[in-house]
Amino acid sequence: MEQAIYYEDYEIGSVRESIGRTITETDIVMHAGQTGDFFPHHLDKEFAKTTAFGKRIAHGTLTFSIGVGLTANVINPAAFSYGYDRLRFIGPVFIGDTIHTKVTIKEKKDHKKNPDMGVVTEALEVINQDGRVVLACEHLLMCEKKK
Amino acid sequence: MEQAIYYEDYEIGSVRESIGRTITETDIVMHAGQTGDFFPHHLDKEFAKTTAFGKRIAHGTLTFSIGVGLTANVINPAAFSYGYDRLRFIGPVFIGDTIHTKVTIKEKKDHKKNPDMGVVTEALEVINQDGRVVLACEHLLMCEKKK
Amino acid sequence: MEQAIYYEDYEIGSVRESIGRTITETDIVMHAGQTGDFFPHHLDKEFAKTTAFGKRIAHGTLTFSIGVGLTANVINPAAFSYGYDRLRFIGPVFIGDTIHTKVTIKEKKDHKKNPDMGVVTEALEVINQDGRVVLACEHLLMCEKKK
Amino acid sequence: MEQAIYYEDYEIGSVRESIGRTITETDIVMHAGQTGDFFPHHLDKEFAKTTAFGKRIAHGTLTFSIGVGLTANVINPAAFSYGYDRLRFIGPVFIGDTIHTKVTIKEKKDHKKNPDMGVVTEALEVINQDGRVVLACEHLLMCEKKK
Amino acid sequence: MEQAIYYEDYEIGSVRESIGRTITETDIVMHAGQTGDFFPHHLDKEFAKTTAFGKRIAHGTLTFSIGVGLTANVINPAAFSYGYDRLRFIGPVFIGDTIHTKVTIKEKKDHKKNPDMGVVTEALEVINQDGRVVLACEHLLMCEKKK
Amino acid sequence: MEQAIYYEDYEIGSVRESIGRTITETDIVMHAGQTGDFFPHHLDKEFAKTTAFGKRIAHGTLTFSIGVGLTANVINPAAFSYGYDRLRFIGPVFIGDTIHTKVTIKEKKDHKKNPDMGVVTEALEVINQDGRVVLACEHLLMCEKKK
Repeated sequence: MEQAIYYEDYEIGSVRESIGRTITETDIVMHAGQTGDFFPHHLDKEFAKTTAFGKRIAHGTLTFSIGVGLTANVINPAAFSYGYDRLRFIGPVFIGDTIHTKVTIKEKKDHKKNPDMGVVTEALEVINQDGRVVLACEHLLMCEKKK
Repeated sequence: MEQAIYYEDYEIGSVRESIGRTITETDIVMHAGQTGDFFPHHLDKEFAKTTAFGKRIAHGTLTFSIGVGLTANVINPAAFSYGYDRLRFIGPVFIGDTIHTKVTIKEKKDHKKNPDMGVVTEALEVINQDGRVVLACEHLLMCEKKK
Repeated sequence: MEQAIYYEDYEIGSVRESIGRTITETDIVMHAGQTGDFFPHHLDKEFAKTTAFGKRIAHGTLTFSIGVGLTANVINPAAFSYGYDRLRFIGPVFIGDTIHTKVTIKEKKDHKKNPDMGVVTEALEVINQDGRVVLACEHLLMCEKKK
Repeated sequence: MEQAIYYEDYEIGSVRESIGRTITETDIVMHAGQTGDFFPHHLDKEFAKTTAFGKRIAHGTLTFSIGVGLTANVINPAAFSYGYDRLRFIGPVFIGDTIHTKVTIKEKKDHKKNPDMGVVTEALEVINQDGRVVLACEHLLMCEKKK
Repeated sequence: MEQAIYYEDYEIGSVRESIGRTITETDIVMHAGQTGDFFPHHLDKEFAKTTAFGKRIAHGTLTFSIGVGLTANVINPAAFSYGYDRLRFIGPVFIGDTIHTKVTIKEKKDHKKNPDMGVVTEALEVINQDGRVVLACEHLLMCEKKK
Repeated sequence: MEQAIYYEDYEIGSVRESIGRTITETDIVMHAGQTGDFFPHHLDKEFAKTTAFGKRIAHGTLTFSIGVGLTANVINPAAFSYGYDRLRFIGPVFIGDTIHTKVTIKEKKDHKKNPDMGVVTEALEVINQDGRVVLACEHLLMCEKKK
């Protein structure tokens, strides 16, 4: 679905929540295969027993990629992703955990150089089935202003 | 390969570079499948022709995940990943581009609360076959100090 | 996105069109891997040269699965899929073709046994980059009526 | 294995059964990734608990694709797939269920326009480990006649 | 398809050939992801230009796995795979090459300890579209004797 | 990591062990999809109950491919893989088993024709979580001699 959302349309404090998704063993195995990160924390059940968590955990980049992907519903031709700040891996994600993403509009700023653009900061929280935030970050969205 | 690298072992200014990897159409299709982000910028050749880039581009989370994955060679039991700062998507990655990651030790700081730990900041640059930086970020590594 | 759409909400003749997606070699290889159908029409470039099409074609079940998947945007808790009629493979889909799906509400009927339900028939057309219909079918949707 | 089977070779009432295959969580995750259908009925364990089925179910297009794929043993150069009729999702397929496909030759008809061809209707039933039919459809096979 | 083939049924010198399959970039990327072997010979187009082959080559284990897989048509309940001898990577397999496997019954021997069993040696040759053997090995098949 | 290791550098009797990896249902499903080997020994839970092992087992080519892949850490520009001898499937690998690979330098020989090369034989053992060898083979490595 495509829908133009302009700088002026974003309201500070507004919140949207994604649907949920269970992180499976498949997701972890596929992410290892995509990234080449086969560290035993993610892929070796026996090794994982010896760690503080006691079992295999999802890659940080997996939780981030799926957490962001869950928000990709509406194609906004009036904005593009500029980057992320303060990405933090707050808690572990285990096989069988179900996560969803909460997006809160946190800040709006004029673009320093381009008067036709603004920067919207979205606070992303990836939350598990117990309501615990497992990953947080700030998404910087470059948005066109209405003419 | 497992090797303990302590806070004291990291030298500011030291640099390591990963091997390279060509980003394929397969990587993009699999990343869409992993994240659920099927935006036409990544998956629709006809749509992509109408964009500024003129062709399909890799997801930001894909370049980030592979860029980080390329650095996952040595398992360091004396450190863990705390998060990332200033992640920026600087240039597009197209199908057939070959990227590698350059890691520079940028900063070292004592941990604010835990005297046995320090925070090492690694500057990551993902660089394509033309020497262009396409993604940059700072990796925060929590490291044990030697006793 | 979840949104309840009831039997009464469907209007005969109304049309929606999905975004597009390029069918890649990856999609065909992965579909062979998922279904176990490794017929050379799909996976053997040399064999394909000897066929009427002259090149590898997508599996019918692949075009159907992606064509249907492209319409899966809104979760409707007031309806479920009952089945498909008159599924026809009208034209070949080649590697690099870009398809999208057009859905037309074609018919509405009371459920024969359950007065609280109705059956909505959606005509699905999967269309390639040249505007050619490559697959058509009718989707039967069991819908709740408003109370 | 290639073997020419002509219109005359099909006998009404003859039956063949495929080998079995267990539908895994991997299959469902991969099918979501292939089709872009990440509906929580298939991928969200917590959501699934709130549905009538109580657990995640396979996509209809997955059961259909694998059910059909299980029959793809013999390459018949004298026939091609024309389409499917009366495809019905009769029962749920859960993670861990094992399905196989039973094919019964149901009907034979001359082609309306081409005297050298005939249409064979195969009734496909996808059956789970308890003997329950979970999907049924009719496959239309365009077959050459012997000269 | 299941069919019991006993020790006595194998004839020295008899030959069967599999269907063909084109080795795609997808196959190589997926095999890297399955095995964790991301060596630049397979995945880095720029590196590959500097090698004797000049382009990316398939992993030896990929050619072996697909070469063997191509022969997996008939389930023989009267035999099982004991191992392989003299596996040799004779020539490179490039993206886009099409391979098939030729199996020749080479030798038959009584089992040293079990009088009810025999060992059949199959010579496997994986052959590309130019008729060149790219991989060869000997497959040891433990077979039941007829009673 | 790239490091030149010459013929003279290999010491008979020296041993290295890889990290571990748990073989998952995902690995088996993906390997079936890669190779086209959908034999019920690997993919049909109900069939597997009727076999001597009582449950699904990994493909031999999967255990071999992963077992070899686990050793692919250091890119050695002074050597290449010539082949494998005496590959034996010694014990079953079940879903959830964790394997690692032990490599022992077993033999060194001058190359018969090329005085600048030598052949190093590495004994590979793939070992499960109970210390049981499940696969063994000998790897022939063609190595340059120092000048």
